Amino acid sequence: MEQYHILNRVSTPADIRGMDYPTLDALCAEIRDFLIQNVSKTGGHLASNLGVVELTIALHRVFHTPEDTLIWDVGHQCYTHKILTGRRDRFDTLRQPGGLSGFPKPAESPYDAFTVGHSSTSISAAYAASCANKMSGSDLCSVAVIGDGAFTGGLAYEALNNAGRSKNNLVIVLNHNAMSISRNVGAFARYLALIRSKPSYLRLKERVEMILDHTPFIGKGIKEWLTSSKSLLKVLLYHSTFFEELGFAYFGPVDGHNLPELEQTLRRARELHRPAFVHVETVKGKGYEYAEKNPMAYHGVGGFDIETGNPDVAPADSFSTTFGALLTHLADRDDRICGITAAMTEGTGLVHFATEHKNRFFDVGIAEQHAMTFSAGLAAKGYLPVFAVYSTFLQRAYDQILHDAAIDRLHAVLAVDRAGLVGEDGETHQGIYDVSFLTGIPGVTIFSPSTYHELEIQLRRALYDTEGVVAVRYPRGSEPETQIAGCNPAGDFSFWEGTTRLAAVSYGRIFHSLYPAARAQKEPPALFQLNRIWPLSDKLVEKLLGYERIVFFEEAVQNGSISEHLCRRLNEEGYQGHFTAFTLPNAFIRQGSVPGLLAEYRLDQDSMTTILQEELSS
Amino acid sequence: MEQYHILNRVSTPADIRGMDYPTLDALCAEIRDFLIQNVSKTGGHLASNLGVVELTIALHRVFHTPEDTLIWDVGHQCYTHKILTGRRDRFDTLRQPGGLSGFPKPAESPYDAFTVGHSSTSISAAYAASCANKMSGSDLCSVAVIGDGAFTGGLAYEALNNAGRSKNNLVIVLNHNAMSISRNVGAFARYLALIRSKPSYLRLKERVEMILDHTPFIGKGIKEWLTSSKSLLKVLLYHSTFFEELGFAYFGPVDGHNLPELEQTLRRARELHRPAFVHVETVKGKGYEYAEKNPMAYHGVGGFDIETGNPDVAPADSFSTTFGALLTHLADRDDRICGITAAMTEGTGLVHFATEHKNRFFDVGIAEQHAMTFSAGLAAKGYLPVFAVYSTFLQRAYDQILHDAAIDRLHAVLAVDRAGLVGEDGETHQGIYDVSFLTGIPGVTIFSPSTYHELEIQLRRALYDTEGVVAVRYPRGSEPETQIAGCNPAGDFSFWEGTTRLAAVSYGRIFHSLYPAARAQKEPPALFQLNRIWPLSDKLVEKLLGYERIVFFEEAVQNGSISEHLCRRLNEEGYQGHFTAFTLPNAFIRQGSVPGLLAEYRLDQDSMTTILQEELSS
Repeated sequence: MEQYHILNRVSTPADIRGMDYPTLDALCAEIRDFLIQNVSKTGGHLASNLGVVELTIALHRVFHTPEDTLIWDVGHQCYTHKILTGRRDRFDTLRQPGGLSGFPKPAESPYDAFTVGHSSTSISAAYAASCANKMSGSDLCSVAVIGDGAFTGGLAYEALNNAGRSKNNLVIVLNHNAMSISRNVGAFARYLALIRSKPSYLRLKERVEMILDHTPFIGKGIKEWLTSSKSLLKVLLYHSTFFEELGFAYFGPVDGHNLPELEQTLRRARELHRPAFVHVETVKGKGYEYAEKNPMAYHGVGGFDIETGNPDVAPADSFSTTFGALLTHLADRDDRICGITAAMTEGTGLVHFATEHKNRFFDVGIAEQHAMTFSAGLAAKGYLPVFAVYSTFLQRAYDQILHDAAIDRLHAVLAVDRAGLVGEDGETHQGIYDVSFLTGIPGVTIFSPSTYHELEIQLRRALYDTEGVVAVRYPRGSEPETQIAGCNPAGDFSFWEGTTRLAAVSYGRIFHSLYPAARAQKEPPALFQLNRIWPLSDKLVEKLLGYERIVFFEEAVQNGSISEHLCRRLNEEGYQGHFTAFTLPNAFIRQGSVPGLLAEYRLDQDSMTTILQEELSS
Repeated sequence: MEQYHILNRVSTPADIRGMDYPTLDALCAEIRDFLIQNVSKTGGHLASNLGVVELTIALHRVFHTPEDTLIWDVGHQCYTHKILTGRRDRFDTLRQPGGLSGFPKPAESPYDAFTVGHSSTSISAAYAASCANKMSGSDLCSVAVIGDGAFTGGLAYEALNNAGRSKNNLVIVLNHNAMSISRNVGAFARYLALIRSKPSYLRLKERVEMILDHTPFIGKGIKEWLTSSKSLLKVLLYHSTFFEELGFAYFGPVDGHNLPELEQTLRRARELHRPAFVHVETVKGKGYEYAEKNPMAYHGVGGFDIETGNPDVAPADSFSTTFGALLTHLADRDDRICGITAAMTEGTGLVHFATEHKNRFFDVGIAEQHAMTFSAGLAAKGYLPVFAVYSTFLQRAYDQILHDAAIDRLHAVLAVDRAGLVGEDGETHQGIYDVSFLTGIPGVTIFSPSTYHELEIQLRRALYDTEGVVAVRYPRGSEPETQIAGCNPAGDFSFWEGTTRLAAVSYGRIFHSLYPAARAQKEPPALFQLNRIWPLSDKLVEKLLGYERIVFFEEAVQNGSISEHLCRRLNEEGYQGHFTAFTLPNAFIRQGSVPGLLAEYRLDQDSMTTILQEELSS
């Protein structure tokens, strides 16, 4: 830490408010070095954070944080914010168990105004804060910092539509990445690029106003006429961007790496005391060659070698890439198959599909609602849509699954990635609710493969042997290293004989912990691995009724879990034995390693071994 | 029917395609009369349907339905569409058990392309259909008809953002009601009004183009320069509305009651073979004096007297109005209380609150996601937000409840109206999923009052004695006519002594059927009425363990129900008796009368009487 001479002097934003620009430039360089050094060890989001170093400094200098409310959209770009707000010395604990969160977290600091993690919430929350300030007679300001990617989410638009008609002290900062011009999705992104390419056009308005302001008599008269009349010129001059039409004062585009210019613009926006929209241009990965060249690779990273830019470990095969390869292969032979993603082409393994089946691939932006309704629309026309989505983001599409797809039994396939615990991203990203909310929607079928081979077989079943909405859910990362003999992945469940005194049941990746735990018992229990986890197989229930005791291990929140549904069903069938379920609690699960968290909730092999022993000796 | 000389000749849209305009004018008059006659008897949506008679005719004449895909947003304005597509003779069964749905329903007709009921889905679905047409090499067109109200929903924007960048055969028809200028919410609505007020400005572009087209040599040169250059003029002329900036060809505003003009514009849009946006002006309630004057009152109506416009029955007290009055009263004394609604000020009973506490009232438009995140944002600033919302529309905010409010235990109150079966609106509107999805979110508390008095007490508990997200859910309509003696509405549950051989449990309105059914038994069972239905009261569980048998009646979908959670809990506690639950099935419940549906699923008093008898004699 001794090399960070300036940074070491910063404990709160007050410490940077008195600095001059040469010092601030040096501070920016130190912060970039600090970010690269740390993230190369802890992993995390690098490119987006390197892009907002100046912006973060400018925001904390212009606004009186934490009294002024500052909300980061998605929140993965909050690292400099954390470093400047008293968390520099704990920064090496980022994303570690018990350490700093990779996202803003109010419990961690008063500077973190709102829990974030999912996209497009910041304008709603900042507008709410501005309404609260207004109601309490406060003159404080609220700021949302939102990327152009997050602007593809409808929630951002809903909030903009509400905020624009207010007179509140509210500043929306659009963080417009160079990266996104080519990659970002949709007509709105194209519109932003158009604005950026036409600064002279946009500045015309300012120039005309300035000229009029400085031309005595005649100028003033013309300006008044312009302002009051309904002339064409007024419409043209005073509604030069959509944001102005929505009620915002528009500033920009401004260079997001030029501190004085940034601060001047933000200060003007703050002084307006009405909704303002500041369009800031930044470069993702700014200051680290490898990240600037390939910002996607440095969006979320594990550790890496700073000199070469090489990641610690070459990316292994994963459920995501296996799914992507398989879907591409299936689509070669079936031209009804479409691939849909909500801005997660890489994450969900659809890169190859996107090039091989370009005309049947749809990246809709961060717009899970639309992705689902769009999938339903394709299904209604006889296509086979496969919406690949992280479990945590599928939460956004609950009503669209139920209302747009399930009611009419449209055949849409959900490839639910990152199902189960995700580890380092913590509470906001755990994929532990999908079983609960999907089984609450009538007619949904769910498969839960634990290996690539099972994924392949069950994805085929989902596509070709199932009606209505069907989800295939699989965890983050790779399949278990050891395969299990005797599986029946094409059936609704696999079964291994054992004592009639105990049946042990599970599904998904933790079955690979249950299997050895069970087989190691002196008198091994019967083993059931569920493949089609919902609806419950009648044959499964019938078989289970024959055991004195049943123990079920499940990596999902308790309410609405398969084990809970099974418990009810066993009760209906008059089961007289003992049924015990180990699930995740009805609680939010904080960040930690997946193995560590599984152990904490007794879903690891050691715990299972103990539990089975206890059950067998009961 | 004999008075409808022209309408009687229409069985399919083909029958209107050859008619001349005088005949069509007469047809429009007949349809209006038909609508008024029928809806005055069956109830339903009147004003919106009277507004789109000409538009519906124009659409079916210009587009080749059903091969061209026609999707009505929300769908309550589909009556003329149904009348013209072979359902005229069954129209008197509208919204009745076994009768026509009040919404488009693919199972009912090939002209109904997509299941609708909730708002803002039409552009996603129509765009999907246009993609499907493109993939299959078809030249057919897809049309979405969407009101300005539905445009406040973010899903519409997500879809627009995707559709605008395509080259598909897609026409978005904006049905812009006169009513909505004053009532509709937000900056976008203001923008639409601005466009409408500036037809001369918008038509400038057409005029300039026409002049240039008709001026030889010089004109052509200038036009080419305009089209190819990056001049200011080009930007001004060729990006005259936001829709054009998003990639749509913009047409309008056009008079929605002028058939020739409408058809000409729609035909031009269809012939473009690329995304087009047609801005149509209509008058809600057109042609029926009372509905034109007061369209809100005729948005959704019961029967009414045609001559006087008076409804069959004066609006009774309801849970909604009781809630509204109470919240207004509480807000008189507590200036932290805010009322939030998503375009349902009247429906949720907040009319009075909106005037009494104007500065703490927020109608956010049809934007449930924003409503919830906004509520969370207010809670984060120490306010007491109460989001009043129909159960079925709360489905839209699932992720916002979980991610934006529940993770940080923000204290936001959900006033969940129309919880349980809603009757005539059918599958798309049943409020039977909220218990399932809310109990799947950690930390949520749920109250379920069955009377106004209980609502009052439990809303106070929700506001002042509960942490985190808390829902108070109550049914559509009025409280039961008879009150029950011995309730303990301030406690987590009410209890009436009875035989230890049987405990009968329920909550909400159907407890008022269970109570008499139980008390009428020779040897009455013990009775439990849950007030705080979730989390389960430990004391309740402890008491229940003392009964030989337990029977639970619940008006909610089975998976994720309170009875299912209780079944699991009883199992954990080692309960040795018999537990039986009667819930709604894991299925979509079609339209019907609420009493009829309750009887069908054995949740009425007669069924309960029989079930209790059987339980007591087991």
